[in-house]
Amino acid sequence: MIAMGCSEDRKLVLYGGPNSPFARMARVVGLELGLDFEYSVIDVYSASFLDAFNPLRQIPTLLVNGCDAIYDSRVIMAEFAFRAGRPDFLHDRDSMKSTRVALSIGITETCLQHRMESIRPEGERSGAVLAKLAVKLERGLRHLEKMAGEISAGPLRLEQVVAACMLEYVDYRYSGDWRADCPGLRDWLLNFRERGSMVASRPYG
Amino acid sequence: MIAMGCSEDRKLVLYGGPNSPFARMARVVGLELGLDFEYSVIDVYSASFLDAFNPLRQIPTLLVNGCDAIYDSRVIMAEFAFRAGRPDFLHDRDSMKSTRVALSIGITETCLQHRMESIRPEGERSGAVLAKLAVKLERGLRHLEKMAGEISAGPLRLEQVVAACMLEYVDYRYSGDWRADCPGLRDWLLNFRERGSMVASRPYG
Repeated sequence: MIAMGCSEDRKLVLYGGPNSPFARMARVVGLELGLDFEYSVIDVYSASFLDAFNPLRQIPTLLVNGCDAIYDSRVIMAEFAFRAGRPDFLHDRDSMKSTRVALSIGITETCLQHRMESIRPEGERSGAVLAKLAVKLERGLRHLEKMAGEISAGPLRLEQVVAACMLEYVDYRYSGDWRADCPGLRDWLLNFRERGSMVASRPYG
Repeated sequence: MIAMGCSEDRKLVLYGGPNSPFARMARVVGLELGLDFEYSVIDVYSASFLDAFNPLRQIPTLLVNGCDAIYDSRVIMAEFAFRAGRPDFLHDRDSMKSTRVALSIGITETCLQHRMESIRPEGERSGAVLAKLAVKLERGLRHLEKMAGEISAGPLRLEQVVAACMLEYVDYRYSGDWRADCPGLRDWLLNFRERGSMVASRPYG
């Protein structure tokens, strides 16, 4: 049953931004699982068409058949895994792994908040907020490092994609200095970042 | 196998704040599913003990046996459902329902951001940011209203708990004016808010 305004071509369009870390996570999952989807880069600030599908105007948003919107990134990554017949990729019955996903997502959000705070105009920016976010971000990375052995072992799965995209986003928007405190994550990323899905989706130089 | 520093009593402690909407969602799920857990109210600003378990110092954080930390709220709610033998409560194979969960969580986050922005000191506050968050919040609520029929029908499940806690948080921190635009959600909440779990967890008057 197809709702009004929907096409029947079963097409998947993943809307993302040029640098969005969450869109990249979803894209890498889609690529790794071999799904047939279009990746569409939009400027989220002017993309008012998106409001009718996702009123929070988040990227990523996944549009199915031109009408059904699925979001946020965690829900999209789950949808991709179900479509690929790979629910095991999600390890969603293992709350320790899911907590590591939530930690990597939380570090990414903290990094994004730090970026947004840093580009606020003079008179609206807070040095105290910036400092607090920096502490949280660095504490998060050191905590994740304690679990680097668990993250790097075993087959390709959600927590690895999310951690790798987070680390490269921190490199891009914050600093690469985390490598000194996080040798386990550093060494693991060195190989993981060479995967085809990571190379194809890398928005930053 | 019990790690160093862990107790064997299988005790669940859910750390929350006096007004945290996300902690309330997890608490309501735990109460509805009949789980045996302690709810511990902490002041997140001074709760440095939490950093060792959750470096993002988020509430809610669930501590199992005094040592294994589970977060964020979505992961905790899933853990509760697995422990209760009720994975159906999560409807996690239904991405349309999961998208509604993500929308309610996103509206809650927007409301929280609006609150945090509004209490920033003069010279660090942005009228433009406040206005943008207000637009997003109200657009999110009107969008959810279109799905009020789907949300209100059927058995008790995750998307209902998350929507109800979100609506009462918007009432508390923003405004109750959404009722004029959202009669479906308004009428549904009128009954849902009388549930024992909602009454027992209601932090605001």
